[in-house]
Amino acid sequence: MYTLIIGNKNYSSWSLRPWLALRATGVAFTEQKLGLFTEAFARHLETLTPAGLVPVLLDGDLAVWDSLAICEYVAEQHPEARLWPQDARARARARSLAAQMHSGFGALRQALPMNIEAHLPGIDIPEAARQEISRMHAIWQDTRAEFGQGGPFLFGAFSIADAFFAPVVSRFVTYGIAAAGPVRDYMDAVLALPAMQEWMRDARAEATFVEADEPYRKHR
Amino acid sequence: MYTLIIGNKNYSSWSLRPWLALRATGVAFTEQKLGLFTEAFARHLETLTPAGLVPVLLDGDLAVWDSLAICEYVAEQHPEARLWPQDARARARARSLAAQMHSGFGALRQALPMNIEAHLPGIDIPEAARQEISRMHAIWQDTRAEFGQGGPFLFGAFSIADAFFAPVVSRFVTYGIAAAGPVRDYMDAVLALPAMQEWMRDARAEATFVEADEPYRKHR
Repeated sequence: MYTLIIGNKNYSSWSLRPWLALRATGVAFTEQKLGLFTEAFARHLETLTPAGLVPVLLDGDLAVWDSLAICEYVAEQHPEARLWPQDARARARARSLAAQMHSGFGALRQALPMNIEAHLPGIDIPEAARQEISRMHAIWQDTRAEFGQGGPFLFGAFSIADAFFAPVVSRFVTYGIAAAGPVRDYMDAVLALPAMQEWMRDARAEATFVEADEPYRKHR
Repeated sequence: MYTLIIGNKNYSSWSLRPWLALRATGVAFTEQKLGLFTEAFARHLETLTPAGLVPVLLDGDLAVWDSLAICEYVAEQHPEARLWPQDARARARARSLAAQMHSGFGALRQALPMNIEAHLPGIDIPEAARQEISRMHAIWQDTRAEFGQGGPFLFGAFSIADAFFAPVVSRFVTYGIAAAGPVRDYMDAVLALPAMQEWMRDARAEATFVEADEPYRKHR
């Protein structure tokens, strides 16, 4: 039985990714939500991982950390879920995109923190983040055009690449980033995932206000 | 026939990682070195990858980018090279460490840019970077103790995890970071790799001085 340790659902974009991948396997797992930025949180995490960050997946006494490594582990353990595309070229591309998201898009992340509950259109977005938004739109559109036959996701069926972009889709909704055509269709497909709907519902029900993730509000 | 596009050898820590993984397969590949930060560099990259960054692996007409995705691709294509540990638990841990390095250790990276040719002991290292250095030492020591039987690397035999930490080993040499015992032994094993020796020799032969990577010098 897996346990996935996550931060919270409104702000923790890194937690959302492996949570969606796990849900896509259909395997039951326990979700353990830790308050972000508390002493108890830090102490408990240190016993599990030298990274000291969520998410962490516990599989018996094995702790796997980092969103991408958890997704790779789950994909290996559940090959029938096809969390990566079956075709080697498509799989290589999916890994390129997930890894690019994993280490990149820093301006977008900083300017537009994930905040599912909030609705903040019209904020002033720095130029560097605008460029990354354009790049993101182009990636989604080009990948759909090249690999997206057979389903509404980047590689047709849902894959880890979609799990990695799901928090970005949510950010674009929160901050009212204009999108049309194939980009809008892709975002709608991600937002319509039952697992994504469930996560967003839980996020809206949370009462926590984390100042570090709220550059644009003083309270909910 | 693979082509690996890299930046340069003295500074490009991200290029070193998949280069070492490719070398470990024993497969011949063409190395294409692009000058970092030139117009021609940017234009050529844009035709290959939306990330616009090195490294990029070309396998025929397939472009795979991002250091980690390239390593996963090479590991898949060459299972006989055992670029990930064979044991599932060890493999999960190796992926956790590679992914943690891929998105983390930002203070260390910023304070101690890879600079193979330079010898800069005694610089003033910020507290955040010092903490990450301690964390790195603990990771190496703990991983060696738990998984390092059967060889001098983190998981015994050389793996992608070692490729991911090799630039950090080089940084610690450049900036004279004290290390003893198992940490020193691990660093020596990485530095003694014939592929690492070759890369370092090439790096020292480069004449380029990249200001953005030289917070502590005005010239070579």
